[in-house]
Amino acid sequence: MLTGNSQDRRRFLATTAGFLAASACKKAVPSEIGSPMRAYGERSPYEKAIRDVKESVTPGTGATRTPLQDLQGIITPSSLHFERHHAGVPNIDAAKHEILLHGLVERPLVFTMDDLRRFPSISRIYFIECSGNSASEQAGNPQPDPQTSAGLVSCSEWTGVPLSLLLKEAGLKTKAKWIVAEGADACMMARSIPIEKALDDILVAYGQNGEPLRPEQGYPVRLVVPGWEGNINIKWLHRMHVVDQPSMTRDETSHYTDLMPDGRAQIFTFVMEAKSIITRPGGGQRLAYGPGSYEITGLAWSGRGKVQRVEVSTDNGQTWSDAELQMPILSKAATRFRLPWTWNGAAAALQSRCTDETGHVQPSLDELVRARGRFTYYHCNAIKTWFVHEDGSVSHA
Amino acid sequence: MLTGNSQDRRRFLATTAGFLAASACKKAVPSEIGSPMRAYGERSPYEKAIRDVKESVTPGTGATRTPLQDLQGIITPSSLHFERHHAGVPNIDAAKHEILLHGLVERPLVFTMDDLRRFPSISRIYFIECSGNSASEQAGNPQPDPQTSAGLVSCSEWTGVPLSLLLKEAGLKTKAKWIVAEGADACMMARSIPIEKALDDILVAYGQNGEPLRPEQGYPVRLVVPGWEGNINIKWLHRMHVVDQPSMTRDETSHYTDLMPDGRAQIFTFVMEAKSIITRPGGGQRLAYGPGSYEITGLAWSGRGKVQRVEVSTDNGQTWSDAELQMPILSKAATRFRLPWTWNGAAAALQSRCTDETGHVQPSLDELVRARGRFTYYHCNAIKTWFVHEDGSVSHA
Repeated sequence: MLTGNSQDRRRFLATTAGFLAASACKKAVPSEIGSPMRAYGERSPYEKAIRDVKESVTPGTGATRTPLQDLQGIITPSSLHFERHHAGVPNIDAAKHEILLHGLVERPLVFTMDDLRRFPSISRIYFIECSGNSASEQAGNPQPDPQTSAGLVSCSEWTGVPLSLLLKEAGLKTKAKWIVAEGADACMMARSIPIEKALDDILVAYGQNGEPLRPEQGYPVRLVVPGWEGNINIKWLHRMHVVDQPSMTRDETSHYTDLMPDGRAQIFTFVMEAKSIITRPGGGQRLAYGPGSYEITGLAWSGRGKVQRVEVSTDNGQTWSDAELQMPILSKAATRFRLPWTWNGAAAALQSRCTDETGHVQPSLDELVRARGRFTYYHCNAIKTWFVHEDGSVSHA
Repeated sequence: MLTGNSQDRRRFLATTAGFLAASACKKAVPSEIGSPMRAYGERSPYEKAIRDVKESVTPGTGATRTPLQDLQGIITPSSLHFERHHAGVPNIDAAKHEILLHGLVERPLVFTMDDLRRFPSISRIYFIECSGNSASEQAGNPQPDPQTSAGLVSCSEWTGVPLSLLLKEAGLKTKAKWIVAEGADACMMARSIPIEKALDDILVAYGQNGEPLRPEQGYPVRLVVPGWEGNINIKWLHRMHVVDQPSMTRDETSHYTDLMPDGRAQIFTFVMEAKSIITRPGGGQRLAYGPGSYEITGLAWSGRGKVQRVEVSTDNGQTWSDAELQMPILSKAATRFRLPWTWNGAAAALQSRCTDETGHVQPSLDELVRARGRFTYYHCNAIKTWFVHEDGSVSHA
């Protein structure tokens, strides 16, 4: 047990408004009975965090971003999971939905949702990141807050059947090399997936954070392709065609390829590399207490496995300190990092740098641009800088 | 890679409706653009899982249960977290809320929510279980489905400040032995907590599953007291009084004590012991495919640490098989267990039995009643039995 002798201990609030005499506390305890129970709860009306919906010029296409600055822990609330639609959110009745598995298999199969639920299932916490996340940063247009800078990433507990089990049930023929997965949205979004990944860790997922998938995340069933770019995690899954070569669909040729400085494009760049961002303090926020103690926190992730280390700099990358990583650290999942910080009131530049278990180190934007040029719209994992000004405001410039 | 030779592999659906020729698949792909993006998502209108709201004769008191049979993974959706209120859900504006920490401390403190958020925070996945969960089972009235039998347990990722940090900030005096935590609901729900637990793993929590606490779970701030009975996880926390002995509040004397067969009552029985329940197949469900392959799954937890083992019996406890435990297995968190099962069409009796890392084994109801009698309303962790009938229906009797 601690004693009252605290002269040698760190004090957090000693100079702030939080340190008050007990007599100053005005407790407002309601004298009336509160609200009744509810069958399906909602958040407090005092909470306002939202995804950033902007009308697109093309109906049904667009994206909303997760308000990273409002998140806590590693789970993204399903209501705030980022969206990326190519033809809107289809209205699907799970009781009538079917998934076709055909092509180079011994036994073509059709699964209803009830069929799927009979298979042995697993749950895993994985991030999903749109390959276009932070594209503006790479293009030289730094974004003003965590949500607009890197909000096309979210993390959920996904539940479903390993795709490998369904493929075993169907029986792969020897020529089977790729699987073309197709969604039941109006554009029939489709991507080709190498058979090695399909037999590794892909989930045919029907659960998200304890309940059925949300409509915007593929209800009633989607692929979860751990660590790979978001668009290949096909939503509203209704067909898997086992083939001997990739289909070269629109979304792996005209879209979702990486244009190199020499004019050639890389295709099938699946993996989302090690990345991190400080979410608090971040752009648009304010160190409201003046100089003193604050917590620096953010999220890190890697499509290649576990986050091994996150370093934080408050001097624009000159010196770095190891942040504490939230346990458990899970492969291909968001990892929360935290570092206590005493702000001295001077201008500061905050950065975070992720290293994953393969040794890959998150690059600076300069390093990224030197390697790839300015035209690779996708796969930007550059270090993001937040500038703290002497008045306590935080911005991207 | 697998070959097409599958004669020696296990087949799951070979005799069922799931095994169809590809030509039988009628794919319904919508030809119209779907729904637009939304700022804050909602679940599919086709999904109907709810908590079981029943009007209480006493306004503001009552409980709703989590529909365990509908859960997936280990996270309980916040909208379906069980409720237990003693004076309804107070309407609290987080911006105006304060927490008083006073009594046997060097520096009485008042914290606003902004003050709290400056402290180093942590996130942990923990279950919370009402001590009255499964009370009907112990009283000899087995309940018909997982929700009514054991739905007063839920599991969330909680984020907040370790209570130990706040106590260090205030400076405990040497006589400090207990903390009386009090809620801001109209009944000012209060419980006494030993200082050893307060300095161990208690969280002053403001986050639940990535966003602020839901109103029903204590918005804007509650105690999370890992592994201990639900009512001591004080919601709508507004006061912590450091004292030298327990306060003997109403809710630790007239309520929440365990009446023994000899007429004496045990008090301060904090820990929720090792427990499990099969949630699918469970009472009220049906093995709709007839004899064949099914997945048996459920949840296990222990207030003393990690779940070490879950065994499943399909013959009323005569023989047991080890279920697979979902990784990661976290201390004082729900653990998902799963076992593939081939139903032969005969009557069966399904049970699960949890053993925790301390070696505590979940007892049968007979063993529990022999030890405690029929009057200990609280802390029932007995094995639950589901009866599978020849027609595929599942019931509690």
